Amino acid sequence: MRTIEWKDGVVYTIDQTVLPKKEVWIELKTCEQVAQALKEMKIRGAPLIGVAAAFGLALSAYHSKVLKREDFMHELETAAETMRNTRPTAVNLFWAVDRILKKTRETRGGVESLKEAVVAEALRMADEDVEVNRRIGKHGSKIINDGDVILTHCNAGSLATVEYGTALAVVRAAWEEGKRIKVFADETRPFLQGARLTVFELMRDNIPVTLITDNMAGYVMSKGLVNKVIVGADRIVRDAVINKIGTYSVAVLAHENNIPFYVAAPTSTFNFIQSARDVVIEERNPEEVTRIGTETIAPEGVKVMNPAFDITPMRYVTAIISEEGIITGRELKKRLKG
Amino acid sequence: MRTIEWKDGVVYTIDQTVLPKKEVWIELKTCEQVAQALKEMKIRGAPLIGVAAAFGLALSAYHSKVLKREDFMHELETAAETMRNTRPTAVNLFWAVDRILKKTRETRGGVESLKEAVVAEALRMADEDVEVNRRIGKHGSKIINDGDVILTHCNAGSLATVEYGTALAVVRAAWEEGKRIKVFADETRPFLQGARLTVFELMRDNIPVTLITDNMAGYVMSKGLVNKVIVGADRIVRDAVINKIGTYSVAVLAHENNIPFYVAAPTSTFNFIQSARDVVIEERNPEEVTRIGTETIAPEGVKVMNPAFDITPMRYVTAIISEEGIITGRELKKRLKG
Repeated sequence: MRTIEWKDGVVYTIDQTVLPKKEVWIELKTCEQVAQALKEMKIRGAPLIGVAAAFGLALSAYHSKVLKREDFMHELETAAETMRNTRPTAVNLFWAVDRILKKTRETRGGVESLKEAVVAEALRMADEDVEVNRRIGKHGSKIINDGDVILTHCNAGSLATVEYGTALAVVRAAWEEGKRIKVFADETRPFLQGARLTVFELMRDNIPVTLITDNMAGYVMSKGLVNKVIVGADRIVRDAVINKIGTYSVAVLAHENNIPFYVAAPTSTFNFIQSARDVVIEERNPEEVTRIGTETIAPEGVKVMNPAFDITPMRYVTAIISEEGIITGRELKKRLKG
Repeated sequence: MRTIEWKDGVVYTIDQTVLPKKEVWIELKTCEQVAQALKEMKIRGAPLIGVAAAFGLALSAYHSKVLKREDFMHELETAAETMRNTRPTAVNLFWAVDRILKKTRETRGGVESLKEAVVAEALRMADEDVEVNRRIGKHGSKIINDGDVILTHCNAGSLATVEYGTALAVVRAAWEEGKRIKVFADETRPFLQGARLTVFELMRDNIPVTLITDNMAGYVMSKGLVNKVIVGADRIVRDAVINKIGTYSVAVLAHENNIPFYVAAPTSTFNFIQSARDVVIEERNPEEVTRIGTETIAPEGVKVMNPAFDITPMRYVTAIISEEGIITGRELKKRLKG
């Protein structure tokens, strides 16, 4: 089952804020509606954000009423800017928008040709995402042994992608090969993607999963209950991995307990021109911390910090698993220097 | 304001499960009611658990209808067993029960004398707790500098004690001395003692506090926003500190970021005959993880692990602050070997 679909100028996607209680499919008909869904994290997960942004541009193109190429390009640039302003950290968003714009610029002909080109490119990106994830799974499963217990943080699963996932692609591929593995899922406050989405996905696939709060990850590692950590990434720069808040802590704890720490992400997440200091960490609404559904969990008026991501220096990363294969932190460093 | 009071055979205490939304005082009239309140964590925090257990025995003694010393002692032993079975990890519970039993055995005379002795000893323990905490604050404030930003985990404040707190005693004493300090409070899943209780206490005292989720602690440390960590303890053994789940992670992250990690706790929390392997870590109800108030945050039927405490090896502890002074991990090791 795909997380996002395109049909005749409408984008259909699961509202991830109400999972696992309800499986609500929403219809998005404009670029602005896609932007809103991204901001509210109805759509989330770096690879999916990228594809959703491409579909946002496709909606803009498909429904465009302009007749001149120049006007079309202007409209598309505006839509691109709307997309770029939704989430500042996930690099796939910028990658996807740039790819659509580049494709459009390279396409000859009138507005109808451009419209077709944009929609076709967005659809191609969705298909590619699935293919890329399968390859991540195939490469990654090589490092998984029968009996492994894998800890993951946040949701880098089907729901973070078009299908199959990144970190969970590795889990799925190993499981499909018959390896008897188990997963610990960090609940991942404040948005609870682990409790709500990772657990939901894995239970649906009958892969054994145990839910823990984020602050239990260190305990289960120290007790020898985990032998691998695999997470996704929102951006991988020269010297660090940017991923959901809490990833850094998991990486340090894995390091301290001699547990390998893997990052599974498509190459569209890489940006080796940048380093950690170039990354803007999105600060989100304090209410995500102080409210859980209808429950208020802290005194009114409390000051809150709510960074959505953190920065894991590359020295804590055992290896990165992408569609191109597995590269260790050391190899990466060497390659970037060369 | 005291967290627990005794008046004419009734124990009055704040129900900590409904804070900060409501300040509900509950009346406990029997030892069994105290046991129930402890199990449900209406009363929590190691020092307060100890005093509450003493009051539980005082209730049993005060309302006793037996006439013979022998029967009284039997009744009190039964009450002691009820208390011991509430929470397995906090050592103060066992310390308090033993102290009451010892006092009773040492008291001469008939049942009336024994009743008086038990109640008097429980009241003395409550008063001593306040005094001990003041001394912890006084010693601890020496390590606090003007401008310090202190991260704390869970609630080791007034609400964890009869009054003034342990980790928060240090914060309070420094604040009262005019040091301009700030606090980061980890929310402390699953029970949210940080978000609900620590934030509540500090806001009431006008001490600047910022709430973060547990998985943000590493981030704020790595960003250089914290220069000291202070937590309480449920038990301190030869080689480790046992405290609320997540403490170990905070300690490792502090260590990795060269931030001193202090434990503030009364000597009644110490048990240097034991080591980490002797400690039973309480496993609590999975619903504490899957439900927050009325909100269910994970798919039904999910497997959950819910250890209430974790184990921080002494090598991560910069120093322990007790009513007797400050002792570094290294000094402690030396003294225990001697």
